[in-house]
Amino acid sequence: MAQDAIELVEVGPRDGLQNEPDIIATEGKLALIERMIDYGARRLEVASFVHPQRVPQMADAEAVIAGLPDRPDTTYIGLTLNKRGVMRAMATRERGPQDGKGRGIDQVGCVLVASDTFGQKNQGQTIAEGIAENRAMLRFAKAEGMRAQITISAAFGCPFEGEVKPATVLAIAEEMAAEGPEEIALADTIGVGTPAQVSELFGALGELLGGRIPMRCHFHNTRGTGVANAWAAWQAGVRVFDASLGGLGGCPFAPKATGNIATEDLIYLMERSGIGTGIDLDAAIATNRWFADRLGRELPSLVARAA
Amino acid sequence: MAQDAIELVEVGPRDGLQNEPDIIATEGKLALIERMIDYGARRLEVASFVHPQRVPQMADAEAVIAGLPDRPDTTYIGLTLNKRGVMRAMATRERGPQDGKGRGIDQVGCVLVASDTFGQKNQGQTIAEGIAENRAMLRFAKAEGMRAQITISAAFGCPFEGEVKPATVLAIAEEMAAEGPEEIALADTIGVGTPAQVSELFGALGELLGGRIPMRCHFHNTRGTGVANAWAAWQAGVRVFDASLGGLGGCPFAPKATGNIATEDLIYLMERSGIGTGIDLDAAIATNRWFADRLGRELPSLVARAA
Repeated sequence: MAQDAIELVEVGPRDGLQNEPDIIATEGKLALIERMIDYGARRLEVASFVHPQRVPQMADAEAVIAGLPDRPDTTYIGLTLNKRGVMRAMATRERGPQDGKGRGIDQVGCVLVASDTFGQKNQGQTIAEGIAENRAMLRFAKAEGMRAQITISAAFGCPFEGEVKPATVLAIAEEMAAEGPEEIALADTIGVGTPAQVSELFGALGELLGGRIPMRCHFHNTRGTGVANAWAAWQAGVRVFDASLGGLGGCPFAPKATGNIATEDLIYLMERSGIGTGIDLDAAIATNRWFADRLGRELPSLVARAA
Repeated sequence: MAQDAIELVEVGPRDGLQNEPDIIATEGKLALIERMIDYGARRLEVASFVHPQRVPQMADAEAVIAGLPDRPDTTYIGLTLNKRGVMRAMATRERGPQDGKGRGIDQVGCVLVASDTFGQKNQGQTIAEGIAENRAMLRFAKAEGMRAQITISAAFGCPFEGEVKPATVLAIAEEMAAEGPEEIALADTIGVGTPAQVSELFGALGELLGGRIPMRCHFHNTRGTGVANAWAAWQAGVRVFDASLGGLGGCPFAPKATGNIATEDLIYLMERSGIGTGIDLDAAIATNRWFADRLGRELPSLVARAA
């Protein structure tokens, strides 16, 4: 990767789709993922290992993973909220690739929440329980030879508690850094963050990590600040960015819940600033159109609308 | 104004409405403007003095201005593209306020374009002709005791010529600064700019002006960078920001042309960053809902949708 470049983590297949009310068939998900690889995505969050009753859209996680192309240049991430999720991710590797497909998950994305209330509602864990569980998950993954990273969600605000103190986020990050995850991400899960907050929090995280562990960011554009936050994160030294094709991830029934920052909008921002992304923007926009046709509605990405 | 504060220029009545295909009655425009004043807008771009055949929505400019409340704490701006426009703005002051209304335009907004092709299409002026005309406009306004500022449009890119050189923008700014306008604005008329570009261009403009003339910015959110650009402008020392209620200003028939940055989104960005705006965000969101009802469609502001 050149010095002036970012790495995209395409989260559309997981964070994007999980809010879609209509179940998308496994084949449809795989067709989407293949198009994402075609437009240049090399790290993809392909599924989450949650209970199918909680997130029905992810009920076919293992089937999707079994159909993923066995390309050496891709990294497939599975989201895990507990040790059971890590075990499910491990199990996807047992069969091994067949007919060029289904080598399994390459990296688990462990998640804990920087808010007691939100953490209990989202995954039944207080902050302290999340730290303990994720420590166990990281240790287990390491012991089993599974790559693992960590995401601290609701790091910029909580829908129930309001403000989340930077000191809380940093204390969690310090605990997790001790376990040596491949990277530490901060997520603005509900899209309340502002660039000043991003500069402060990632600035402090960068000092804490001292370059030993890469930083990653995950923004939602719920209040229009997602792209501004991405730019502030770039300026704070973050080089790994989550985004979802078209800005998928909002709930189509609730215009309130705008989705992840759109891959197209992030790529436009970066490429026009002289920063490499490895993404073919025209191909991403074409994929947006193809998928919007399947969903029967326009996706939020403004760059795709302007093209 | 506190040190950590911005001044909003509410451009909804002009830049917002001029793309609306259905003519809004004068009374509707005045009701909108009064609600804007109620939510805290103190500088408002209320009309433009263009030929009614070119922009039919602005055909009632004089009638709107005659109905504006004569409040001492407001500044009403009229957009002018040539000396004839300045003369029309002057003429609105002749009658004087009657029954607490219609004191006329307080400040003319002179505009020239940083692109020969776009300038000729937009207002029949090359860059050189725009400089000459705007110099004459500023001198005439000064001689007549009319406050005046200048906007350099297409400063971040041209739909016909593509890139616009910073040197071109700065050369125009230098010519205009010599005439002593009250402020100099740079406008991303087509919404192609990125924060890196904003930092560079406003950084250079700030050096050129040396604090003698305030800077102002005008961004469109066509490609999702509007809020990021506003934050970059704040960081570069800009304290006067154009925005339009709801993000009005796109063409409802062309999803491509997203409008100005939304007042609500700008206010959220700033207030949550500890920067004062003087705007009541809840009242702005309520005005958004009221006006969206009148238009029969949702407005682009994401903050209003999330509320």
